[in-house]
Amino acid sequence: MSKFLKKTLFNKILRWNLILPARTIEYTRSILRPLTTMKPQKSVYLIDESDSNGNKSPKSNKYTYRTHNCGELNVENVGEKVVLCGWLQYQRMNKFVVLRDSYGETQLLITNKATQDLLGQMPYETIIRIKGSVLSRPRDMINKKQITGEIEIQVDDFQILNQAKDNLPFNIREFQKAKEGLRMQYRYLDIRFPQMQKNLRTRSKIFMKLREFLIENHFIDVETPTLFKATPGGAQEFIVPTRFPGKFYSLVQSPQQFKQMLMAGALDRYFQIAKCYRDEGSRPDRQPEFTQLDIELSFTDVEGIIKLIEELLFYALAEFTIARNFSRISYEEALEVYGTDKPDITFDFKLRNCTEIFEGNSLLNNLDDFACYSLVFDKNNLKDSCVLTKSVKEQMLRVASQHPKAKLIQVKVTKENFADKFKNLLSSKEASALLENISDGSVMFLAHGSKNYARKLLGKIRLEYVKYLEDSFKLQIRKKGLHFLWVLDFPLFEMNEESGELQSAHHPFTAPHPDDLALLNQDPLKIRALAYDLVLNGNEVGGGSIRIHDPVLQENILNLLKINKDTLQHIIDMLGSGCPPHGGIALGLDRLLALILNMSSIRDVIAFPKTFEGKEPISGAPSEVLDDTLKLYHIKTNK
Amino acid sequence: MSKFLKKTLFNKILRWNLILPARTIEYTRSILRPLTTMKPQKSVYLIDESDSNGNKSPKSNKYTYRTHNCGELNVENVGEKVVLCGWLQYQRMNKFVVLRDSYGETQLLITNKATQDLLGQMPYETIIRIKGSVLSRPRDMINKKQITGEIEIQVDDFQILNQAKDNLPFNIREFQKAKEGLRMQYRYLDIRFPQMQKNLRTRSKIFMKLREFLIENHFIDVETPTLFKATPGGAQEFIVPTRFPGKFYSLVQSPQQFKQMLMAGALDRYFQIAKCYRDEGSRPDRQPEFTQLDIELSFTDVEGIIKLIEELLFYALAEFTIARNFSRISYEEALEVYGTDKPDITFDFKLRNCTEIFEGNSLLNNLDDFACYSLVFDKNNLKDSCVLTKSVKEQMLRVASQHPKAKLIQVKVTKENFADKFKNLLSSKEASALLENISDGSVMFLAHGSKNYARKLLGKIRLEYVKYLEDSFKLQIRKKGLHFLWVLDFPLFEMNEESGELQSAHHPFTAPHPDDLALLNQDPLKIRALAYDLVLNGNEVGGGSIRIHDPVLQENILNLLKINKDTLQHIIDMLGSGCPPHGGIALGLDRLLALILNMSSIRDVIAFPKTFEGKEPISGAPSEVLDDTLKLYHIKTNK
Repeated sequence: MSKFLKKTLFNKILRWNLILPARTIEYTRSILRPLTTMKPQKSVYLIDESDSNGNKSPKSNKYTYRTHNCGELNVENVGEKVVLCGWLQYQRMNKFVVLRDSYGETQLLITNKATQDLLGQMPYETIIRIKGSVLSRPRDMINKKQITGEIEIQVDDFQILNQAKDNLPFNIREFQKAKEGLRMQYRYLDIRFPQMQKNLRTRSKIFMKLREFLIENHFIDVETPTLFKATPGGAQEFIVPTRFPGKFYSLVQSPQQFKQMLMAGALDRYFQIAKCYRDEGSRPDRQPEFTQLDIELSFTDVEGIIKLIEELLFYALAEFTIARNFSRISYEEALEVYGTDKPDITFDFKLRNCTEIFEGNSLLNNLDDFACYSLVFDKNNLKDSCVLTKSVKEQMLRVASQHPKAKLIQVKVTKENFADKFKNLLSSKEASALLENISDGSVMFLAHGSKNYARKLLGKIRLEYVKYLEDSFKLQIRKKGLHFLWVLDFPLFEMNEESGELQSAHHPFTAPHPDDLALLNQDPLKIRALAYDLVLNGNEVGGGSIRIHDPVLQENILNLLKINKDTLQHIIDMLGSGCPPHGGIALGLDRLLALILNMSSIRDVIAFPKTFEGKEPISGAPSEVLDDTLKLYHIKTNK
Repeated sequence: MSKFLKKTLFNKILRWNLILPARTIEYTRSILRPLTTMKPQKSVYLIDESDSNGNKSPKSNKYTYRTHNCGELNVENVGEKVVLCGWLQYQRMNKFVVLRDSYGETQLLITNKATQDLLGQMPYETIIRIKGSVLSRPRDMINKKQITGEIEIQVDDFQILNQAKDNLPFNIREFQKAKEGLRMQYRYLDIRFPQMQKNLRTRSKIFMKLREFLIENHFIDVETPTLFKATPGGAQEFIVPTRFPGKFYSLVQSPQQFKQMLMAGALDRYFQIAKCYRDEGSRPDRQPEFTQLDIELSFTDVEGIIKLIEELLFYALAEFTIARNFSRISYEEALEVYGTDKPDITFDFKLRNCTEIFEGNSLLNNLDDFACYSLVFDKNNLKDSCVLTKSVKEQMLRVASQHPKAKLIQVKVTKENFADKFKNLLSSKEASALLENISDGSVMFLAHGSKNYARKLLGKIRLEYVKYLEDSFKLQIRKKGLHFLWVLDFPLFEMNEESGELQSAHHPFTAPHPDDLALLNQDPLKIRALAYDLVLNGNEVGGGSIRIHDPVLQENILNLLKINKDTLQHIIDMLGSGCPPHGGIALGLDRLLALILNMSSIRDVIAFPKTFEGKEPISGAPSEVLDDTLKLYHIKTNK
């Protein structure tokens, strides 16, 4: 190449200036580069709605200097001049290069030797921009599985936009799953993978669908503050020091108080996709900041909210198969039949209450609230998978050990010696009652003890054993798809086991069932709440309630709960200002997304999650701060 | 009423249970109440898409137990049975009651004496629910200005849903503006006013429009964390103590680093309506938490971003009159002509650089960067309003006192004695050059001194004097409507006046103009940035830049700025991983909304703002926290 030509080329490159960093300029000085055939121009901005060459480019290319993305060209585009930008994904036989962006992959055909040599030296993941013409691929080279598999681009010109380092921590070319720690630390590489692309794009799409439905139905999107006052007795709230000595904001756990104030304020249909905060220390699959869809409306009731949420999710999740009418179960029945308040209804295997059988058995029945439940995995049904090995037993005992007031009995049913095996525990009459309708070879779990502990234990065993069966025998026991379930008639209060004091099962603003109001001073634990949880495939994805709107009732409830009402005087005042009856719900969107996308962790549906310890893996936050900062906020650390 | 009838009535009321608090039940025991004619039913939920009576109700009533809101009934509904809920707004002649909700007002006609008496005792703002029939109003009672002004409701039945207190802190019936402190403390009352309803509903609507446009154009809505690492040298960031001793998160000032990582991660079109945090102590009209529309895209340039934002705002603000192509000005010209980098172009009155006139004047021209600017308010134009009283002069001097390195001269021009007046300062030649083309009776402001101070001083005077004219003479000098202006070619660096060190004019990730790269080591203050601000009617509503994508250039810039690059190593690594060229912008939505809605404070477009001191006025946050909480976070307060 002549000196003159080189100089001309260099000048032209300089004028493509916005996309050429200094390093690349230096780079192009020293390396032979194919002649730039594109006209340099003042603005590199090329694409416009009224694109003069008549190409119908999707809107993903507007406001950029590409004409197409890497996932859209096909035989209809043959002959067109195109500009593509993307990552250097793969290279073979010198002349074929695969360019990748988040929309797909396109094969480039490089015939110029100098270009081949230059690209040959570039590390994968280098960002390049090419100009070329769309060719149809030779018949034997067509890849029918790819949208762009019928074409390739004859490259006329190209540019290195940004050269990647040689030694990236992991490879994006194939789906090689790096360890999670590494994926988190280099999240910007991790989200180049198709799965993460899909997750984040689906998240955005579903959020928009949720908003569309709600706006269409006259809900108002209102942002509420995140810096607020500590909730009385609210552990788990982050605090934020201020310039007022000794005074702190707290980061809200939910917009609960604000959304109720909006109802009092006549904004009668509210929603918000809200960031909420909870400091739970190290808990797997929880995040210190999380996202919920928060909804509240006035002049409604439980049925109103249920209908709203069913229609909302049916709309937003239209591309997934879900039933329009969700199942329903009462809290009590959920515990009785599934041993949990968030039943997984994608499979049967229900608990059976066999307390009656043991009524006269003084060995077992020695508690006020004694109960016994059985859970049978049937031989006829499971055939050879119906096993109870030593290691399975141990696994189940580990589960049982977390339920102190209940005991687990595990047995492979053989009718012959069943009564013998348990002769110390059961009469033969009891044994045969227990075995009624159960086939030989079935696996039976029995839990006995304090009622709630016994059924909860068995609820856990139910999940654990099914998981074991699925993992070990490649069985598909859980039905596929999204199975929503409403859990209704929660208790209003529960007993705090440590303090022995009454506490709210949901929160102190939940309305009691009006039929149970008379129990308020007599037997508060029996009062049902106008509360509801939404469960998806065994996971709680939402919960809410009709709220108390009567200030006197609210005061009574706070008194019962021994909550200092001074801290909530503004709520009592608000209710007394003519606050309409109202109710609402919050859906946990991280969990919902993870379930919809079949991800095992919510971290996979969050762009930049914290680790399970609460650390920010890219920057290393939390970190130390300057002494001046501490001084500004009137605090000292106890190091 | 017979005992039996009372009992039946009471039972019926009990079964309307969801909306009757205990207090109301007691209340209805003691007071005569009209016979309930509505059938009690298991669910109070009445409305459905397939409403059997064939009424076409807007979706604002779905999922509620009203059939219509208070702002929609008209003569077409005459004869229909309706259920309305709302606030008791007004009452006259016993029989007319106005019911209000956030959609409008509807007049009720009460003919039953007992009902009249009961409602007569109810405080305004009590929430009631009525059932009745739509009647046309007598011809002389029609209110054409109201949507519902042609009808009234003959009430058959009603219920007190929640009785308001007698002594609310202020009245909602008329637009009586309470003091802001009171409005903030009882925000749930304040937002019942039509203006606040409009503000919050417009906010929701515009947010949705912004999202619609961006989603339609393939931008992905991604949530980024708010708990992050402190920015190096970043004052103004709230810190959040953690369970790790001595370690803190900080609350992000913007998603800047994350959005750049998304670009590296191939999510090439990102947006988010993001909550951001900044602790500026007490500053009027700032909020510790605020909302910005954050956008970033790959493979773009300045023109790409400008076009995107113009089309976006044109779409989102379609109901307001704005020009499709926004004005543009360079940073230097903005300062030269308007004395500010956020010029208000809704009126002319431009600065004139008259430094040349004083070139030989050693009295004035005694600085290296001496300059003199004049600003004339013309007598021909302003007529009798063109005044310069003593109090005006004092007001302007107060403005001038904030600009130490410049001096202000104010003069009412009378050519006769002008030269005399300033004979100590100006030669007669200088005086006449200054007065060229200026009519007698005009008001002239002169600022001289250090160049930037002089023109900034005059920029402030320009705004102050126009405000004075408008306030004092009821003039409309500023054009109405929304006048957007792009300010371009900002400097990349500026000198920190205190430390004498180079600092970023925007932030350290802003790309230098490629034509100015050679100045990097020679004269960095002369380097232009690829940065842009969006100004609306003299207020900055957005700003952004093309970012540095070359890791070597980024390191050089950090070195120049003396920023410890260890704290940003993750950004340098990210750029080196094959990060595409990219740029973006953030729009301050609170300010934008306030301007669009013509509110004087951003507090009027935020549902629950903090006071200017940063206090949460309803709950009184920030507040003290428990010692246990401090212990959990390993901190002590210096009280």
